[in-house]
Amino acid sequence: MYTKPKIVVLGAGYAGMVTTKRLTQLLSAEEAEIVLVNKHNYHYESTWLHEVAAGTINPNQARVMISDVINPNRVRLVYDAVVKVDKDNQRVELENGELDYDILVFALGFESNTFGIKGMKENAFAIEDIDSSRQIRDHIEYQFSRYNNSPEKDDASLAILVGGGGFTGIEFVGELSERVPELCKKYDIDRSKVRIINVEAGPTILPGFDEELVAYGKKSLEDRGVEFRLGAKISECTEEGFIVNDDELIKAGTVVWTGGVTGNSVLGNSGFELFRGKVNVNSDLRDPSSDHVFILGDCSWVMNEETGRPYPPTAQIAIQEADTAAANIKALLYGEPLQDFVFDNKGTVASLGKKDAMGTIFEGTKLYGRKAVYMKQIIDNRSLYIIGGPKLILKKGKFRLF
Amino acid sequence: MYTKPKIVVLGAGYAGMVTTKRLTQLLSAEEAEIVLVNKHNYHYESTWLHEVAAGTINPNQARVMISDVINPNRVRLVYDAVVKVDKDNQRVELENGELDYDILVFALGFESNTFGIKGMKENAFAIEDIDSSRQIRDHIEYQFSRYNNSPEKDDASLAILVGGGGFTGIEFVGELSERVPELCKKYDIDRSKVRIINVEAGPTILPGFDEELVAYGKKSLEDRGVEFRLGAKISECTEEGFIVNDDELIKAGTVVWTGGVTGNSVLGNSGFELFRGKVNVNSDLRDPSSDHVFILGDCSWVMNEETGRPYPPTAQIAIQEADTAAANIKALLYGEPLQDFVFDNKGTVASLGKKDAMGTIFEGTKLYGRKAVYMKQIIDNRSLYIIGGPKLILKKGKFRLF
Repeated sequence: MYTKPKIVVLGAGYAGMVTTKRLTQLLSAEEAEIVLVNKHNYHYESTWLHEVAAGTINPNQARVMISDVINPNRVRLVYDAVVKVDKDNQRVELENGELDYDILVFALGFESNTFGIKGMKENAFAIEDIDSSRQIRDHIEYQFSRYNNSPEKDDASLAILVGGGGFTGIEFVGELSERVPELCKKYDIDRSKVRIINVEAGPTILPGFDEELVAYGKKSLEDRGVEFRLGAKISECTEEGFIVNDDELIKAGTVVWTGGVTGNSVLGNSGFELFRGKVNVNSDLRDPSSDHVFILGDCSWVMNEETGRPYPPTAQIAIQEADTAAANIKALLYGEPLQDFVFDNKGTVASLGKKDAMGTIFEGTKLYGRKAVYMKQIIDNRSLYIIGGPKLILKKGKFRLF
Repeated sequence: MYTKPKIVVLGAGYAGMVTTKRLTQLLSAEEAEIVLVNKHNYHYESTWLHEVAAGTINPNQARVMISDVINPNRVRLVYDAVVKVDKDNQRVELENGELDYDILVFALGFESNTFGIKGMKENAFAIEDIDSSRQIRDHIEYQFSRYNNSPEKDDASLAILVGGGGFTGIEFVGELSERVPELCKKYDIDRSKVRIINVEAGPTILPGFDEELVAYGKKSLEDRGVEFRLGAKISECTEEGFIVNDDELIKAGTVVWTGGVTGNSVLGNSGFELFRGKVNVNSDLRDPSSDHVFILGDCSWVMNEETGRPYPPTAQIAIQEADTAAANIKALLYGEPLQDFVFDNKGTVASLGKKDAMGTIFEGTKLYGRKAVYMKQIIDNRSLYIIGGPKLILKKGKFRLF
C-alpha cells in the first residue's frame, strides 16, 4: 500500500504560513498530507506587534484566524505547543500529543534574548506575541490610570524605558510618541510628566542603516519628545528600571526590552546544532544534519555569499524562504535537484509613528516622510496579501489618509 | 462702603452644582458674590461611577467641565482641594490658598467607609470618583491581559469580588455581568473561568428594597453568572481576597469594596459634630452650631419626621436639598424666615446591567425589565438636564435602543 508522504509545518508565522500556502498550490491532496501546527488558532503579523504594544492598533487588526486563510479540509490544523523534535525517529512531541513526519518545516519564530543581563528577564517586558504585546499596552495604560490615585504621584511611574535601539525599539518609541499624548488627555495628566527613553549600548540607533536616514529618524523622534541614551550599557534591570554605565539608575514604571532576539528554544531542546541561538542552514534551507528538515525564518541563519555574513532576519526574507522551501519540498518528493535560496532585497522602511517613516528601496533609493509612510503601508499590506489575498487587505489592511 | 456678601460653595457634586446654579438664578451679580470650590475642573455623575468602574461607559460621558455649565464670569471657580473649614473665623483653608465666606455651603460628598475591616482600605478598591473608578476598570482589564502570559494561569486572578450588596454593589455587578463576556472575547479567555462574586453580610441584597423586586434582581443577575454570598461576614481583606465567616478565603484578582460610605473627612477635621460620619442638620439644612453654614448631600443626615429616621443619601435628595438651600440663602441675606426641607420621593430604580432594571416609582408602583430600564435612563438624563440643560443631555445623555 502506498502511503502519502506527510509534511509537517511547525509555526504559523510568515515562513510557516507561506510555506503551507505554497505547498497547497504546488501539490495535490493526493500527492502529500500537510499538517500545520501552531500554538494559537491565529497567525499574527509579528512586524506589527510594536503597534499593539504601544496601543496604536487593535490587536485584532494584527492577527487573522488560520482557518480563514488556510482551508482546513486541505491542511490538517493542529493548535498545540511544540515541546521537542525527535529527529532520529522523525516525530514531533506536542504539549497535548505527538506527530510523525516525513518532511519537517521548522518555523517557530523568535524569542526575546536578554544576553544574560541581570534581572532583564524578570523585570522587563518583551514584544514577542499578541498576548505579551497586549499586556505591555495595558500595563502602560494602567500606570497612567494609577497615577492620579496615588498620593505620591511619582512621575517615574509614567516613564517608558525601551532597551535596544534596533528596528523594533525604534519603531516602538515612534508609536509611543503618538500614543502618550492620547493617554495624557485620557487620564488628565500633563504631557511633560511622561518620559519616553530609548537606551542603546552602541554609538548609534539602527546600526547598519544609512547614516543620513538614522539622523533623520532620530531628530523626528526627538522632536516628538523621545529621549535617547546612546552608548549607555545596561548592566542590570531592576524593578525600578535600568542601571546603566554601572551606577546610574534610570527609573520607569514600564520597562521593555527589544535589544535582542534568538531562535525558538525548541531548537536547542531538540539537539539542533546552534550558532548564536539559530541553525546555519544549507543554501537549500535544510538543516545540515538532516535531509528532511527545513529551518526557516527567525530560527535559521542564511549566508549571504557576497558579504560572507548571514542576512538579518526580517519578514521579507522569511516569506522569500518559504517560496524556496515549498519548491524544494516538492523536488525532494520527486527526487529532483533542490534549488539554492537567493535573497531579493526589496529594501527596508522603518516607521516613526504613523505620520513619519524612513528607509531605502530598490538597492539604495532613500525615502523620507510621507513617501516612506506610504511605502511602509504598501509593505504591511503586501504581507497580508501573501497570507490571505485581497480579502484580507480589505479586512485588516492599513489605509491612512493624510 | 457696602460689601457684597460672599457665598462659598464647597464641592461640585449634585448638591453643590445645583445650589450654585439656583443661586445665580435667585440672586443678581450685585446682590452676592458666589464662589464654587472643587478639586477638579469637572463635575461627575457619581451615580454613574459603577459603570465607569465596570468599563461599560466612557469616563468622559460621566463628567462635564464645570465652566461649560456654570458661567465663570458670574461665579468664581476655584479648582483646589479643601483642607479644613475654620467656622470661628469664617474661613476655608485650601491646599493652595484660602477663602473667607459670609455663607458657606458644605457639599463635599461621600468617602468610602470600611468600618475598620482589617486590610480593606489597603487591599480593596473603592468607587469614589472618576480617577478611582477608572483605575478599577483598568485593573480588571489588566488582570485579563496578564492571564495568558502567566505560566500558572491562575483563574482566581480573573475573579472580581465585590463587598457589599447595597445599591452600588448590585448595580456594579450588573454592569460586570455584561462587561466580562466582552473582556473574555477580547483576551481569548473562556467565560467559565471568570467569577463575579458579591459578598453581603446581611441575609439579603438591597436591604430595605421591596422583597419581590430584590428576588427579581437577584435571579436576573444569577442568570448572567453573578454569584451571591449572603450572610457572609467579611472579617479581613488580604492581598488575595476576602476572609469570610472567620476562616474561608475567597480569592480574587480584583477586590472592590462598596459596603459603606460616610461624609467627607473634612467635616471631622473641621470640628463639626458628627453622627455616624455626617452632620444631623436642622430642618432648614443648616449646621446646628453655625447659622451661616449649610450642609448638603452625602455630608448630612436629614430627618424624616414620619419615620423618625434619616433619609438615605441619594442624588435625588441632594438635588432637592440644593433647591431649599438656595432659597434659604436668599432668605438669610434678606432677614426673611427660612423654609423647612420637604423630601418629595419620586422613587428609586436600580439598574441590572444595561438591559434589565427594577425599582419603584410614584410611592410604590413596581417596575421591571424594559420599562425599568427606560425609567432609569430618564432618571439619569434628568440629572444631566438639571446640571446643564438640554444641551448636556444631547452631549452626554443615555439613549439606548432595544
